[in-house]
Amino acid sequence: MAALAMPEVWGLGTHLAGEPASRKRGVSLSVAVGVIRRAFPDADLSFRVVVLQEPPKQAMIQFLERENAGLPLAERPPRLARVQLFVDGTLNEVVVDLGLGSMVSNEVLDGRHSYIDTVFMQNVAAACLADPKVQEEIRSLDLPPGATVVVEPWAYATDGLNDMKERQTMAWFYMRLSDNPDANYYAYPLDICAEVTSDLRVREIYRLPSGEHDKIHTEKRKFDRRRIHSDSEYHPDLAQDSRTTTKPYHISQPDGPSFAVDGHRISWEKWTMRVGFNYREGMTLHDIRYEGRSLFYRLSLAEMFVPYSDPRRPYPRKAAFDLGNDGAGLNANNLALGCDCLGHIKYLDGWLVTAGGEPLRMPNVICCHEVDDGILWKHTNFRTGNAVVTRSRVLVLQTVITVSNYEYIFLFYFQQDASLFYEVRATGIMSTAPVDMDEPDPPSFGTVVAPGVLAPSHQHLFCLRIDPAVDGHLNSLVVEETHPMPFDGSSAATPDERNPFGIGFSTKSEYVTDECGLNLDFRTNRVFKIVNEGRTNEVTGTPVGLKLLPCYSQMLLAHPGSWHARRSEYASHAVWVTRHADDELFPAGRFTMQSLGGEGISSWIEKRRAAGADAATGSTSTSVRNADIVVWHTFGSTHNPRVEDWPVMPCEKMVVGLKPVNFFTRNPALDVAISRQERNCSVLVQDGAAATHGAT
Amino acid sequence: MAALAMPEVWGLGTHLAGEPASRKRGVSLSVAVGVIRRAFPDADLSFRVVVLQEPPKQAMIQFLERENAGLPLAERPPRLARVQLFVDGTLNEVVVDLGLGSMVSNEVLDGRHSYIDTVFMQNVAAACLADPKVQEEIRSLDLPPGATVVVEPWAYATDGLNDMKERQTMAWFYMRLSDNPDANYYAYPLDICAEVTSDLRVREIYRLPSGEHDKIHTEKRKFDRRRIHSDSEYHPDLAQDSRTTTKPYHISQPDGPSFAVDGHRISWEKWTMRVGFNYREGMTLHDIRYEGRSLFYRLSLAEMFVPYSDPRRPYPRKAAFDLGNDGAGLNANNLALGCDCLGHIKYLDGWLVTAGGEPLRMPNVICCHEVDDGILWKHTNFRTGNAVVTRSRVLVLQTVITVSNYEYIFLFYFQQDASLFYEVRATGIMSTAPVDMDEPDPPSFGTVVAPGVLAPSHQHLFCLRIDPAVDGHLNSLVVEETHPMPFDGSSAATPDERNPFGIGFSTKSEYVTDECGLNLDFRTNRVFKIVNEGRTNEVTGTPVGLKLLPCYSQMLLAHPGSWHARRSEYASHAVWVTRHADDELFPAGRFTMQSLGGEGISSWIEKRRAAGADAATGSTSTSVRNADIVVWHTFGSTHNPRVEDWPVMPCEKMVVGLKPVNFFTRNPALDVAISRQERNCSVLVQDGAAATHGAT
Repeated sequence: MAALAMPEVWGLGTHLAGEPASRKRGVSLSVAVGVIRRAFPDADLSFRVVVLQEPPKQAMIQFLERENAGLPLAERPPRLARVQLFVDGTLNEVVVDLGLGSMVSNEVLDGRHSYIDTVFMQNVAAACLADPKVQEEIRSLDLPPGATVVVEPWAYATDGLNDMKERQTMAWFYMRLSDNPDANYYAYPLDICAEVTSDLRVREIYRLPSGEHDKIHTEKRKFDRRRIHSDSEYHPDLAQDSRTTTKPYHISQPDGPSFAVDGHRISWEKWTMRVGFNYREGMTLHDIRYEGRSLFYRLSLAEMFVPYSDPRRPYPRKAAFDLGNDGAGLNANNLALGCDCLGHIKYLDGWLVTAGGEPLRMPNVICCHEVDDGILWKHTNFRTGNAVVTRSRVLVLQTVITVSNYEYIFLFYFQQDASLFYEVRATGIMSTAPVDMDEPDPPSFGTVVAPGVLAPSHQHLFCLRIDPAVDGHLNSLVVEETHPMPFDGSSAATPDERNPFGIGFSTKSEYVTDECGLNLDFRTNRVFKIVNEGRTNEVTGTPVGLKLLPCYSQMLLAHPGSWHARRSEYASHAVWVTRHADDELFPAGRFTMQSLGGEGISSWIEKRRAAGADAATGSTSTSVRNADIVVWHTFGSTHNPRVEDWPVMPCEKMVVGLKPVNFFTRNPALDVAISRQERNCSVLVQDGAAATHGAT
Repeated sequence: MAALAMPEVWGLGTHLAGEPASRKRGVSLSVAVGVIRRAFPDADLSFRVVVLQEPPKQAMIQFLERENAGLPLAERPPRLARVQLFVDGTLNEVVVDLGLGSMVSNEVLDGRHSYIDTVFMQNVAAACLADPKVQEEIRSLDLPPGATVVVEPWAYATDGLNDMKERQTMAWFYMRLSDNPDANYYAYPLDICAEVTSDLRVREIYRLPSGEHDKIHTEKRKFDRRRIHSDSEYHPDLAQDSRTTTKPYHISQPDGPSFAVDGHRISWEKWTMRVGFNYREGMTLHDIRYEGRSLFYRLSLAEMFVPYSDPRRPYPRKAAFDLGNDGAGLNANNLALGCDCLGHIKYLDGWLVTAGGEPLRMPNVICCHEVDDGILWKHTNFRTGNAVVTRSRVLVLQTVITVSNYEYIFLFYFQQDASLFYEVRATGIMSTAPVDMDEPDPPSFGTVVAPGVLAPSHQHLFCLRIDPAVDGHLNSLVVEETHPMPFDGSSAATPDERNPFGIGFSTKSEYVTDECGLNLDFRTNRVFKIVNEGRTNEVTGTPVGLKLLPCYSQMLLAHPGSWHARRSEYASHAVWVTRHADDELFPAGRFTMQSLGGEGISSWIEKRRAAGADAATGSTSTSVRNADIVVWHTFGSTHNPRVEDWPVMPCEKMVVGLKPVNFFTRNPALDVAISRQERNCSVLVQDGAAATHGAT
């Protein structure tokens, strides 16, 4: 959630349009930065974002369609770069035409805050530790000998209390008792926190509420030595001995992997796609096709909000937009061979720039490999005894981000049957708060995970942006439900209503006509289908489509009138559909740092609805039938911590699926080769040959 | 769903109580059959079930506790066998004491039907084909030259129309056009079906409704030759060429697997359990512990109901209890090395008996192997840059069954962090029905998957029986929900209600007091926890427990008053809790073949509730607080077919999880060794080294 995850690195997103990616990067970067430098020759420049602007979708579509059809490529759309930077301390956003080498526009971002600045956050921490009042507070805690205080600055989640135009930072205090800098300081949350202004002044110091209910200890209590414990370490140098029972497990692919990577273009088992990467969204996928037929124009994680449950001041300020504030690309891990994935692995690098405008390679931010996922399909003809079985090979694209204490793993899984899954794994260390050792009742908004350590409940609310292209770009959203037929066997019933045994059920489908947010309902088997009404499946007689396999999740718990809710508009419904707009990528708004809300997905819809009412034309500007639509899926978890999630939590998985539904004319994986021992080379474990250590 | 899945094989379930399994089997079998033969010296005997009776739970617990504590074993509980057989044509259930070599009880099962009898079903098929009226109907269809008619008998799902005491069988007709017996005859459902009596008389022949709504073609229409097509084959001898793009993928474990198998006892990564197998439930798991601490007494798939949606006569008779009618053990596949699993695989055999009472080994019905499941937990300290990452090794126990057209794959996944998952994969061929080629609108209760072939919608409703033993056998069920706190910052609010920013939320827990069925609700984050109120977690101060991660599914769509609903009582709620009773294993009742209902889980509860009301004691006989409880989870899918599910459907996965929740004092997988390349031996895919076939 906080800021210090990466050294001084800022954003140059890669993007894709057929040119060799490596060449493009350097040229784009130097051209963009050079144009800016010439435009502001005498100013003090500090670069925050240099990212290739994605070409307008309409232009891009024409390019991709020609490419896919094998036609000579049309002229490329103009290549623009978007640059966010401080010009003499003022935040600007400049668009540069890389071809012309000139500025296209310059917007002064008045009242906006750029995403978290690592250096600034380091300065906040240093300012806290240097502040005499903070030092006095720390002294009053009477920490144990050898304690090192650790300051963790967080973005300030708007609560309406302070000037929302000024950048505020919350500094939370921890300590470690070991000399080892990898000691888990989250095991010792201290009773104080500080609010720091943009000019690095400690504006206020708080004693945290750690007792019953809203009670804040006004007396300057000392650190309770009963909190000292040794069970919260995870680093192998500090933790217990590792178990030795897990035997080595190797994967080999004697003929190499089944995928091919050409720049950012990946092809694998009838799939083709391009992989992008930028400072904010991290991994993005583009122009995803199966057998050359288009399925998606773009897939991306669009936002992520992590509000905490604790209502006691100042905890309501803990509410992180981990994409908008921190950046999934900025915080992407360098994935190490053999640690983050297993087998034959291809790594992709990303590119950012430093504050000084120098290119910065982010090595190994995406890994690409294959896994075996058990049986893909099987049938045994019981009359002949002949079994036909195929195994499921899956292509995995993985990226891992560290946002201070937490880790998120984002995975796309491509299957041979043209389905794909998006998985989020939450791991890492939970954010902690102090709790009195003598607290009689466990708090109902958190879990005590170690002596004096409360892991407060929180939500993770992700938004997957699905820009579909189901056999083309004019798509519709269908809500299908399955309902029982009325129990009626009487002759009065019309023929298609006859249900004399009370067992009939059928599906009812409805097209969504206008932009809106919708809810899930498993009780009616509510299914969201993205279809192309202009293409009829020749076998089923229905429009070709995809369906969403949603992740059933509780939506935002904060009150609709709260700042949290106003700022995270997408978090109130599980499924949204909007008309595509090139600049609508972020459903909580472009700027989330201390945002005031009113710029997210429901505001877009509201604005268009209001405009549409004035229009003289029959079709409103919010119509999503046979339109270039975007579908957004909000999902996540209400994480009421288990002590088993401490000190590092085992991955909590959340999975979303997208499957063809009457898109093909039969199982597209029917041609996967039959699984045979000659090829799979499995090993029979004989009686008594297995490990004996476990046989107690 | 129908009967012919296995040759003449009947049930001897294995069971487990510390004796070497191999010796026990033979002895048990011969003793049981011998006792019966002596008891009925002159009768005509046909064995249906010979299964070891599980000892009463109370006796078994004492035995297991001593075993687990390493104490000298107490005297074993008496070993009983349960034998179901026809004695001169009458169905009997006999209990035999294997130690004493004598009959304990004999019950004549009047009005009951044993599970599907393969030989009888073969006779039904033969009787149909020999029947002159059927032959006349077939002639009237004017089938194409070379057609072979295939009869698929199904159990008759009670619809109240015929004498429900007499065994009825529905025979559905298909044909294949190829000489190859592995041709997919489900691609040619014929317009006729027959109802066959227990004495193999064709009682009635139906023309199936295949036109609009309820329309049945009374004129004897010929087979519509436009239905002939070539796209529905899946067998490699008949289907298209296989794709060659999938490169080989090998798993090796140079030091062997991490598990140990001793008879039926498996130990792996702090887990221990015993594996059982019987004709009805297939794989069962017993006495499941982690670090020696008890989690479950028994886990089993308890029932499975597959009702079809089509309300038109006679389709309401298509409703299969795939466990109660067919048997998951009886229909278990012989899993072939390298086809159904990959890597180092240990196979377990099951045992049944023939109708003649001879033992029948079912080879390789369960496979046991390990998989790698990506990252288990990870944290990078952003201050030091040091990443600590562990990989998740998973133990898989798999069994696959074929029930006529469909396949089900049942998997238990054990994780290093003490969580476990139960997965069902549905694959195989969908049951089909004819549909007129000229039908103008696609039917709303099915999908046209090939010319003239309707795949009707249906439900798969599974019931997982969870017999918990959370640190002992007195457990309780807690329903926890997460709710927003009222938005109230006024001083009138009590301290623990203060929520001035409207962001607070907290959990509310309620103990379930009496046996009942409950529903899921993701909107309130409803979580079901099984806890031991007598054991407090020393860190969290709350009872130790487990939680259910349910599979969100639509419940039974058939009307509550329908025969379907009365017969499948468990299918109306997603979670049930009952007091343990040794004879309550099957939540739709012991006998499901043409059952009339009223013997399932809600009837048990109703009966006890009625009895409890009469009792003078305060606590009713339905109390489930601090009791020996059983939790049942009903889940599955409403399967509205996609054409992509044809001709063999790619696996549809349904997953249920069980996780410790404040059971341990921290992450129990914290000691899993750090993932390192030296040990994992992954291979870096260099630029240009990947497959080139896919790079178009």
